[in-house]
Amino acid sequence: MLEITFLGTGAGVPSKDRAMSAVAIRQGPKVTLFDCAEGTQRQLMMSKLSFMKIGQIFITHLHGDHLLGLPGLIQTMGMSGRKNPLDVYGPKGTYDAVMGMLNACEGVYEYELRITEIDGCQRLEFNTHHVDCFPTVHGVPSLGYRYEEKETPGTFDKAKAISLGIRPGPDFGKLQNGETVDGVTPDQVMDPPKRGLSVVYTGDTVQADSVLVGSKGADLLIHDSTYDVGEEERAAKHMHSTCRQAAEVAREAGARYLILTHFSHRYSDCTVLMEHARETFPETYVANDFDTFELTRSSIRPI
Amino acid sequence: MLEITFLGTGAGVPSKDRAMSAVAIRQGPKVTLFDCAEGTQRQLMMSKLSFMKIGQIFITHLHGDHLLGLPGLIQTMGMSGRKNPLDVYGPKGTYDAVMGMLNACEGVYEYELRITEIDGCQRLEFNTHHVDCFPTVHGVPSLGYRYEEKETPGTFDKAKAISLGIRPGPDFGKLQNGETVDGVTPDQVMDPPKRGLSVVYTGDTVQADSVLVGSKGADLLIHDSTYDVGEEERAAKHMHSTCRQAAEVAREAGARYLILTHFSHRYSDCTVLMEHARETFPETYVANDFDTFELTRSSIRPI
Repeated sequence: MLEITFLGTGAGVPSKDRAMSAVAIRQGPKVTLFDCAEGTQRQLMMSKLSFMKIGQIFITHLHGDHLLGLPGLIQTMGMSGRKNPLDVYGPKGTYDAVMGMLNACEGVYEYELRITEIDGCQRLEFNTHHVDCFPTVHGVPSLGYRYEEKETPGTFDKAKAISLGIRPGPDFGKLQNGETVDGVTPDQVMDPPKRGLSVVYTGDTVQADSVLVGSKGADLLIHDSTYDVGEEERAAKHMHSTCRQAAEVAREAGARYLILTHFSHRYSDCTVLMEHARETFPETYVANDFDTFELTRSSIRPI
Repeated sequence: MLEITFLGTGAGVPSKDRAMSAVAIRQGPKVTLFDCAEGTQRQLMMSKLSFMKIGQIFITHLHGDHLLGLPGLIQTMGMSGRKNPLDVYGPKGTYDAVMGMLNACEGVYEYELRITEIDGCQRLEFNTHHVDCFPTVHGVPSLGYRYEEKETPGTFDKAKAISLGIRPGPDFGKLQNGETVDGVTPDQVMDPPKRGLSVVYTGDTVQADSVLVGSKGADLLIHDSTYDVGEEERAAKHMHSTCRQAAEVAREAGARYLILTHFSHRYSDCTVLMEHARETFPETYVANDFDTFELTRSSIRPI
């Protein structure tokens, strides 16, 4: 089970109703943050998430409305007693950008800050998940991220094992750990591993093949949806997507669910963008600030 | 008449209830901003002020909780079509800090951004007001600011002018413009000029002689009040003030009114700090986010 919380869903500038880009994925106690616009630390405080549980922060690109909350959050974590290292990932230029902002405000923090720049496609492995990075198309170095739980072992079939002559006890454990016992191989008594849930977050992008490739078979695609249908020209000019373009990517990629975010402030109620997207991809939802979705193998639901 | 709006009243880190430091003074249509913490642009949008009316921004010191909202606000003004130049003033280091932050996020704006570093005491003249800068004491280069309306001419005494042989008409105007007419001097027929209202904003500081000097006779003193009485040691360690220390400065300076701000998050209700300060300086008020005070020659009142 993954929990996805939208901390900011507006494009470019904030409004009374929408802060700027930040999305959190919670897996068990751990929180991973994607983008960190100005105000994200306070949005976190107003949400049910603990900002002290954040292990990694992924920045899609170095525009202010995705980045400017980082120095404040880094400092606040320090003032709140953080000791664990913090990993920040982003495109080329991220190191200078983050250090430039921290130096500007004499940022003080006592934990280890590790900044990694990603160039192109790359898989990053963590204990409970991995993150695949892929390029998006937004006129500056920009990345999308695919967060995926590690696969879990299939169910062990005790009755089958016994029928094959294995005695309950340590040999059961050996088979579950992948060892062969008395000629019985693990795949004879174990279901295939269960793949983990996957969530793709595009950040800002036009409709792009690289996003389609990165989103193949994802359980959830969170896609730039700055504009409504009919605004394709404006979307192309500013290198964003319309809700329908997002829906087309979700359909082509075979994603299970689509959540639209990063809305232009010309739209006061974004439900209409969801309705337009549903004409192409019925399993579409719209993100508002502080919305949390619970994603399981069988469903997605707001909680 | 001046209108003072508190956009953020918390110290160091934000909370659900308090954003970080920013105070606006409105004189007629013009707005002057003092400090610009992360989130200030959104606080402005949630207030009754227009962020497009801001002419100057004064930064007290280069700590994140007074500074990190600046790049976002500068960009948002640009995206909102600002054409007028924007002046930013601050202590030594302000230029590199602001440009460092803007470069980090590829900040784009088409108007002229003028950054001026202030070293020590200085008066800055504007059309409708002036701002006196003075050093504060906070462990880093730091400034307090005294905003003062320009003085306005005294009332013209028509009856007196006529009794001295002046005929109603153009000669009245000449006298009001400072010219002598038929041996009658302006001071014979004009009351003395009325001094403008003055507001001092200290930013972060210990109780300091330089603040006392800068606040002499101010109509309103807005003073660091991070801690309650009994926390003098902690205040000294972190180079802040207690509410009583702020009240002592207001009393010694002969200020008319005192507003406390920049509260540590250990205090959920800061009314008690106001009550403690009133034991020393009865005309003390407490600032909460979005509080607006109307300051006139005869009173101060929340509106």
